[in-house]
Amino acid sequence: MTPGSMQSFESVFAGKHILITGGLGFIGSTLARRLAGFGARVQLVDSLVPEYGGNLYNIRGFEDAVGVNISDVRDEHSFRYLVRGQDYLFNLAGQTSHLDSMLDPFTDLEINCRAQLSILEACRKYNPSIRIVFASTRQIYGKPDYLPVDESHLSRPVDVNGVNKMAGESFHILYHNVYGIAACALRLGNTYGPRMRIKDARQTFLGMWIRLALERRPFEVWDGHQLRDFTYVDDAVEAFLLAAAADSSNGRIFNLGGHGPVSLKQVADLLVELGAPAGYVERSFPPERKQIDIGDYYANDDAIRRALGWEPRTDLREGLARTMAYFREHFEQYV
Amino acid sequence: MTPGSMQSFESVFAGKHILITGGLGFIGSTLARRLAGFGARVQLVDSLVPEYGGNLYNIRGFEDAVGVNISDVRDEHSFRYLVRGQDYLFNLAGQTSHLDSMLDPFTDLEINCRAQLSILEACRKYNPSIRIVFASTRQIYGKPDYLPVDESHLSRPVDVNGVNKMAGESFHILYHNVYGIAACALRLGNTYGPRMRIKDARQTFLGMWIRLALERRPFEVWDGHQLRDFTYVDDAVEAFLLAAAADSSNGRIFNLGGHGPVSLKQVADLLVELGAPAGYVERSFPPERKQIDIGDYYANDDAIRRALGWEPRTDLREGLARTMAYFREHFEQYV
Repeated sequence: MTPGSMQSFESVFAGKHILITGGLGFIGSTLARRLAGFGARVQLVDSLVPEYGGNLYNIRGFEDAVGVNISDVRDEHSFRYLVRGQDYLFNLAGQTSHLDSMLDPFTDLEINCRAQLSILEACRKYNPSIRIVFASTRQIYGKPDYLPVDESHLSRPVDVNGVNKMAGESFHILYHNVYGIAACALRLGNTYGPRMRIKDARQTFLGMWIRLALERRPFEVWDGHQLRDFTYVDDAVEAFLLAAAADSSNGRIFNLGGHGPVSLKQVADLLVELGAPAGYVERSFPPERKQIDIGDYYANDDAIRRALGWEPRTDLREGLARTMAYFREHFEQYV
Repeated sequence: MTPGSMQSFESVFAGKHILITGGLGFIGSTLARRLAGFGARVQLVDSLVPEYGGNLYNIRGFEDAVGVNISDVRDEHSFRYLVRGQDYLFNLAGQTSHLDSMLDPFTDLEINCRAQLSILEACRKYNPSIRIVFASTRQIYGKPDYLPVDESHLSRPVDVNGVNKMAGESFHILYHNVYGIAACALRLGNTYGPRMRIKDARQTFLGMWIRLALERRPFEVWDGHQLRDFTYVDDAVEAFLLAAAADSSNGRIFNLGGHGPVSLKQVADLLVELGAPAGYVERSFPPERKQIDIGDYYANDDAIRRALGWEPRTDLREGLARTMAYFREHFEQYV
């Protein structure tokens, strides 16, 4: 973060009305903190569904700088009200668990697909000049045909979550193209950092690894040769801010990546180095996970680098160290 | 249709239990007639929603050879029952109007997206050995990047209908890949022929052209230079049968095309030649249509030709002549 871009974000967002769905979640709350720091008038919406990422502790220390409205994106009536008067919508609420989407596909559909359409309809009717950044996912691609995966890769989701997120993303782009609503989408990969869900693996396996490491229990590495890239939460937040601030992002879809691919075993080894006293065990994928696994994945994120000047600043070692430090201090609030 | 393939279809489908959603519609009823002819035990399901393609007159003459169950794909309970004991499901029910999908996006979502998931869940739970052919659409592609469009083209739908059909199709492929349900999808383009909806343009503009031609009123050609290809209904039905009969179609997506691209003006001239005494007027697209128009489109259908040996047999002149002859005789039943 250069002082220059800080000033520029401040000039963009100071005094602006900003709605963040999933605002008590991992990325939403981190984004809220940044925006509140710029002097924005931030309204968080979160359902606090226990299985999802919302946690009131995530806004500890700046509760007074943001508004909190507990509500579900499936609640059309509350959103008709909530979108009014907002300059920006950071639309991050979602069901994120791939496995849960297979066990309860309709709930995933209601949140990740139908509710997205209803939020967009609310914007079209009551606030068409709002600017929206939608949190999409690399899950849309399914098993990559080639690596790194760029935005021209076909969408062939391997789980219900991927199908519904694909539809939700498409609705955003459609409402831009047809109705002129300034919307864009970021396809996130493995985002990690302080305030992530570590209670279980519903956001990412890495959450579970961190929990077990801090409990001094061994964590499980499934198929350690698999490649992934990782985005530190502050870098993801930076991408959301850049995408919201630039007209050139309207109607676009951008991948977010990190500092290049690492194997899961490399990540595990790094975690051990940073403090996982019981180490890890390697095993093969459980069958219900293997069915919806995408294999190796890492992103080509040249498009957002070129269009918005985004680049990741925090490498995996530094990011994991900060994450472990955070959860060492605040562990009880997250498990 | 060679006698060889006729025999082979008979050996595949005779005595088999077959469910056709949208079975009173244009393609569904034509497919039903073929299947009944092979000695299959055909059960049609149709909602008879007045704006959609279902019409009891479509099965006139073979009512006794098929069962009819009036029910809506949104009705989860009836489908839990209806899918049981079926060997094949031809899943053709859908909301087809692009414009209606923009005016009432949630109804389109319920039918083309959510109901597809619930039909697949019913199959997974109560009849996982069923074979499914899903009627998908070229609308999924949106505005083509290149022509002819093959199945590797990105999906970037330009209307709500396209997004929901994309999700519905993806659920079918997903349920094949994850649960082993034998499902495949055909991406239809402009299908035409006897029994199509001609009351309005909800299925295709060509329906409206035919109606007006037979009413001796001028029809409207919007942007006559636009290119399309056309599939005669018997050829589309042949594709459904081939796809259902072959194991090699499992999990696949196939474009259907026709005899190559023609301009809308060429089609209009052909229609005039075949009997549209009041001719046509050319005008530009109405604005609400232009917004969701996809420009030129014609399909590369090499994949289904190679994999299943499909090829279109009826050219546009012959197909239109048969279509006009049918509607001359049965006009009152369709308007």
